Amino acid sequence: MGRTLTYPKRSSNTVNRYKHRATYDLGAIHTIINASPVLHVSFNPGPDDPFPTIIPMIGQMGSFEYPSASINEPLECYLHGYVSSRIMNLARASDGEGLPICVATSQVDGLILSLTPNSHSYNYRSAVLHGYANLVTDEQEKLWAMELITNSVLEGRWDNSRVPPDKAEMSSTVILKVKVQDGSGKIRDGGVSDERKDTEDANVTGRIWTGVVPVWQTFGTPIPSGEGKLAEVPKHITSYIETKNKQNRALAENAVVVQLPPEEQH
Amino acid sequence: MGRTLTYPKRSSNTVNRYKHRATYDLGAIHTIINASPVLHVSFNPGPDDPFPTIIPMIGQMGSFEYPSASINEPLECYLHGYVSSRIMNLARASDGEGLPICVATSQVDGLILSLTPNSHSYNYRSAVLHGYANLVTDEQEKLWAMELITNSVLEGRWDNSRVPPDKAEMSSTVILKVKVQDGSGKIRDGGVSDERKDTEDANVTGRIWTGVVPVWQTFGTPIPSGEGKLAEVPKHITSYIETKNKQNRALAENAVVVQLPPEEQH
Repeated sequence: MGRTLTYPKRSSNTVNRYKHRATYDLGAIHTIINASPVLHVSFNPGPDDPFPTIIPMIGQMGSFEYPSASINEPLECYLHGYVSSRIMNLARASDGEGLPICVATSQVDGLILSLTPNSHSYNYRSAVLHGYANLVTDEQEKLWAMELITNSVLEGRWDNSRVPPDKAEMSSTVILKVKVQDGSGKIRDGGVSDERKDTEDANVTGRIWTGVVPVWQTFGTPIPSGEGKLAEVPKHITSYIETKNKQNRALAENAVVVQLPPEEQH
Repeated sequence: MGRTLTYPKRSSNTVNRYKHRATYDLGAIHTIINASPVLHVSFNPGPDDPFPTIIPMIGQMGSFEYPSASINEPLECYLHGYVSSRIMNLARASDGEGLPICVATSQVDGLILSLTPNSHSYNYRSAVLHGYANLVTDEQEKLWAMELITNSVLEGRWDNSRVPPDKAEMSSTVILKVKVQDGSGKIRDGGVSDERKDTEDANVTGRIWTGVVPVWQTFGTPIPSGEGKLAEVPKHITSYIETKNKQNRALAENAVVVQLPPEEQH
């Protein structure tokens, strides 16, 4: 592409702590979102409620207008939900640009076990998006988003299940489309980082173990149920499990190897 | 105890969808929070910003006044952060009861692969708390919360690192204490659930595999770094990894076995 698109830095999405770990690149942020089995979505329930709330939702970045858009390009965030849930009712009733929401996710890739509690940390990837949410009303776009989101749970699952959804299924499912206004990501990788006052103190270093424990999500052996009569676990499931288990483990272990200069770590 | 304490049901925390999966029990909700390596914390940055925002934080439920309180009893939520981060500045500047925040977490325990995309789901445990956040100012309480939170990352780590924190470390770390106003949890376990229109259609059941893929968090082999000179990985780390890996896997696999009556599933 020859260019890296970035989200604008506003006060709401600018990272102030450990800035060297922050990213505003669309590609990096969208990749973190799309790798998340669950997104945490925040909104304000109403003027009488002092608390913002958070619900877990399944979602995915994509572009219905330009379905071939790459992960580095401007994309919308599509979120899946039930027709009468509160966030859907609020989005339906919202005027102006839509319901202001925040979409966030974090994946832990490792425990950073250092000399002092203060320098303990995680290797992680986190991302946040702010945007206006509206209900998708176009039936073709809705169907496209349902397929996108289903396949994010398990690649190829849409075509290996009973589709298309019937009329009742289409009307009970609602898809939220988030017009993204800004976003940021934060990635911590590398190893342990401690301050000189501790690394140079033999009384401290001599009795403490430091290092990284890689952490990743594992998919286990599929447990069949009685509904589908297909006897053998199909390839789209077995190969997804095998691929993801390898990828997830490699990502967590390789994250440790990335070594930044000590002054940029913590 | 002979009684089960529950959070009050207010509009902000009442679950309307799949109510049979909802819980308001303190014990169930606190357990889900404490099992989470990361919590998602939402707050409103200010009157000029239409979007609530979410940051990932490490936290733990506990009671400084009654340290021996069980998980089923009223507890505060302690969150760890950096002195000048935005949420800390907002909490410091808040008047009245404190900064209104929402704390949420979700853990995926399995992929529910059913006949139709609409009946696909996750086995999961999620929890949400609403409350007022204030900075902990008492030094003893702060130290106690730092130990609580450090040990939630890896059991016994506090005593196996260089403690206590020195003056600079104490002042750069800030602990938020959340006075919980309400909360709710949601647990989905069990197997696949499909509607009769599909389970009785041999054209559908004959070509589709249904079942559950258990999902859990795995801790890998510790990778030593140069700072701590202890040659062997100590027991508090190896036994934590071994125990958690067994527990996490068993939880995900056992969740599948719980079988509710079909009409209560989805």
